[in-house]
Amino acid sequence: MEKKIILPEKEIPRQWYNIQADMPTPLQPPLNPATGKPVGPEDLLPIFPMNLIEQEVSTERWIDIPEGVLEKLLIYRPTPLQRAYALEKYLNTPAKIYYKNESVSPAGSHKPNTAIAQAYYNKVAGVKRLTTETGAGQWGSALSLACKLFDLECKVYMVKISYDQKPYRQLMMKTWGAECIPSPSRQTSFGRKVLAEDPDCPGSLGIAISEAVEDAVTSENTKYSLGSVLNHVMLHQTVIGLEAQKQFEMIGDYPDVLIGCVGGGSNFSGLSFPFIRDKIYGKDIQIIAVEPTACPTVTRGPFAYDYGDTAANTPLLPMFTLGHNFMAQPIHAGGLRYHGMSPLVSRLVLDGLIQPRSYNQLETYRAGMIFAQTEGLICAPETNHAIAAAIEEAGKAREEGVAKTIVFCLSGHGFLDLAGYDAYLSGKLTDVSLSEEEMQKSLEAIKSFPKPAI
Amino acid sequence: MEKKIILPEKEIPRQWYNIQADMPTPLQPPLNPATGKPVGPEDLLPIFPMNLIEQEVSTERWIDIPEGVLEKLLIYRPTPLQRAYALEKYLNTPAKIYYKNESVSPAGSHKPNTAIAQAYYNKVAGVKRLTTETGAGQWGSALSLACKLFDLECKVYMVKISYDQKPYRQLMMKTWGAECIPSPSRQTSFGRKVLAEDPDCPGSLGIAISEAVEDAVTSENTKYSLGSVLNHVMLHQTVIGLEAQKQFEMIGDYPDVLIGCVGGGSNFSGLSFPFIRDKIYGKDIQIIAVEPTACPTVTRGPFAYDYGDTAANTPLLPMFTLGHNFMAQPIHAGGLRYHGMSPLVSRLVLDGLIQPRSYNQLETYRAGMIFAQTEGLICAPETNHAIAAAIEEAGKAREEGVAKTIVFCLSGHGFLDLAGYDAYLSGKLTDVSLSEEEMQKSLEAIKSFPKPAI
Repeated sequence: MEKKIILPEKEIPRQWYNIQADMPTPLQPPLNPATGKPVGPEDLLPIFPMNLIEQEVSTERWIDIPEGVLEKLLIYRPTPLQRAYALEKYLNTPAKIYYKNESVSPAGSHKPNTAIAQAYYNKVAGVKRLTTETGAGQWGSALSLACKLFDLECKVYMVKISYDQKPYRQLMMKTWGAECIPSPSRQTSFGRKVLAEDPDCPGSLGIAISEAVEDAVTSENTKYSLGSVLNHVMLHQTVIGLEAQKQFEMIGDYPDVLIGCVGGGSNFSGLSFPFIRDKIYGKDIQIIAVEPTACPTVTRGPFAYDYGDTAANTPLLPMFTLGHNFMAQPIHAGGLRYHGMSPLVSRLVLDGLIQPRSYNQLETYRAGMIFAQTEGLICAPETNHAIAAAIEEAGKAREEGVAKTIVFCLSGHGFLDLAGYDAYLSGKLTDVSLSEEEMQKSLEAIKSFPKPAI
Repeated sequence: MEKKIILPEKEIPRQWYNIQADMPTPLQPPLNPATGKPVGPEDLLPIFPMNLIEQEVSTERWIDIPEGVLEKLLIYRPTPLQRAYALEKYLNTPAKIYYKNESVSPAGSHKPNTAIAQAYYNKVAGVKRLTTETGAGQWGSALSLACKLFDLECKVYMVKISYDQKPYRQLMMKTWGAECIPSPSRQTSFGRKVLAEDPDCPGSLGIAISEAVEDAVTSENTKYSLGSVLNHVMLHQTVIGLEAQKQFEMIGDYPDVLIGCVGGGSNFSGLSFPFIRDKIYGKDIQIIAVEPTACPTVTRGPFAYDYGDTAANTPLLPMFTLGHNFMAQPIHAGGLRYHGMSPLVSRLVLDGLIQPRSYNQLETYRAGMIFAQTEGLICAPETNHAIAAAIEEAGKAREEGVAKTIVFCLSGHGFLDLAGYDAYLSGKLTDVSLSEEEMQKSLEAIKSFPKPAI
């Protein structure tokens, strides 16, 4: 009865898995916002180095992980696959519940998996400095860490309201040597424009992206880095699932149900893509992507071409979206408030390989509390969405009397997000599901967007 | 070139190591504060269950770890022994630097090693509720977690100033179902007495201990739990060193230098005691206990009989002490501000088996920053003391041109203690070494204490 299934270091995956090689329906290309024509690699060069652009469009099934990346991943990888015995007992379920614990990284989440890879490729390409945006701070922390490990400068535009509310997150970034400033800032022309219109603007991810991209495009030896949504980000995260496959092999088991929370899609893709490959080739496995009812991108949004940022400067991506002007209610799971969804995840949902599901905030904290009090780990509010689904599936297994194997991605710990638990414990946490009226407003806005084929 | 040396779960130690079986000089007994006579087991029964009192005085070399304890330790144990390649490279040293990473526990430090054992033994003894004190919050969090895992009630008296300054710590405890209140409180007669004299009293560890003990003694089915200093606490922590010994065996290496920070002595004892046994039987290994210059208990304090708490209610323990009325300056390493030192550690220092050393706050943060920026991990301010010593020893190895093997205990992460890094980064961190004048005042106060034989 092993509690943790530990993969030896020498078994760490040496290649990432690129699901573009196996998808039943190929991705449609991003569109240039100016011309409406498919984006070419050269369109992306001002913001990304060519080696990452090549990964973004590659259809090679396996892509070698460079030694320089492996060396840094080994700081915390392979991560444990843990069995939630105490949770199973509490739920009185015949199901076996496993979690892939990505919270053990120095930044406390799965985000360094791609931050390290991106910092490495930029370093190799001769880039000296990276810019990015961050909302709640998980991604900004991860990129700050990665830049320090590869001796790159790093500048993080952090949504102002989070910057003020989460002083510990910016301190982490500064400890790793990054410059972190509140956005909107006076350091970009877009930031100045926003502040001229509204000096008290609390900021948004869309504004921060626009500032980070402007900084990258207008500064020397500088590129921009994104922590989710794009294909190369999902690629880098597949180490999670590739490790998990080996770990299940070690114990002679295989999941019947796989669960991850989705904001832009990166931790979910990381765990699921290698298993979705198995599913494409005939394995019977249920794959569940969980989002908040406050930002129901995949469960209620349409599939359309939309911008990645609020300012509508990025290429148009074919994805589920609530519209680039959509502003989700301020739920604690800041990482799940994104208006769009990874095009890869979106396509796989359309093809019936992924099943989307949503929970409201209260349900997710109830689940997170059960997990904290049985398994001992206090999880990030994003992760609590995956736990809610795992608990529901374990309940079904009990009703059906089937000893299903369930696995979910524990994407991050909640040490820097305890305010949500406080609100829950003091009865102040509210459900903020998207209303039908708000949903109709979003759908109306999206009507005019270009339509990709389904 | 392994980065992490991982011990398989089945290799987790099944017995704790009790150094009392091997010490060259046996411990002198604690004294009853009322009679001045050695304390008998019955004197301790109002606050501890008999099974833990038996461990406290046992001289058996090996004590079985119950299955119920092992099961919970397996949530995070065995912990990794990690090689600090990037730090070595940065320091340009031939030394091999390893750290035993205790930050991977759900509470973020080594404290659950004993919290889980103590909760288990209290549960077995029929206790329903535990009380304790906490300063910075590491211990209170660990006991809250452990009590939840064994379905015990838990009440934590948290030093008021920390309660106010560290809202996240109390939130952790509440998430694990504990009641955490600021001390001095109106819920004990001692707390009311303190508040009557000074309504704005910021609290102290001494006051909080007195409140927690009073609560335990006056409540039904309730005992008190201490997170450091006592023999059974050191015993429970030896899993750290026992695992490390197996891990070094796996790679065919053995430390020349072993380092831990000391407040009450628990993480240091946990890593070092199994190696000190080797040293007693002839191994050549240097054992360094690191404390802050702001609270130089072992480097400058005398060896005397002193109380564990400020209110002078606990038994008198033979130990290095700065006097139970000593109030260390408010350095960020709150866990190292205790006036006394584990009697076991104290005795081993007297016998020349442990070498004490101190660093000032600035030196420790400088070391912690180097570690964060090379190895990626942001450590607790307490841990930074051990890192400072590791860096100094690695420097000596460079000067001597010797490829020494150095190991230190990474006792906890710093995610909830980032304020100190902020102060360091903004140039506001000050050195607060104990002045000669203050030291003389302490020595004067201790003069009247009973003297144990040396």
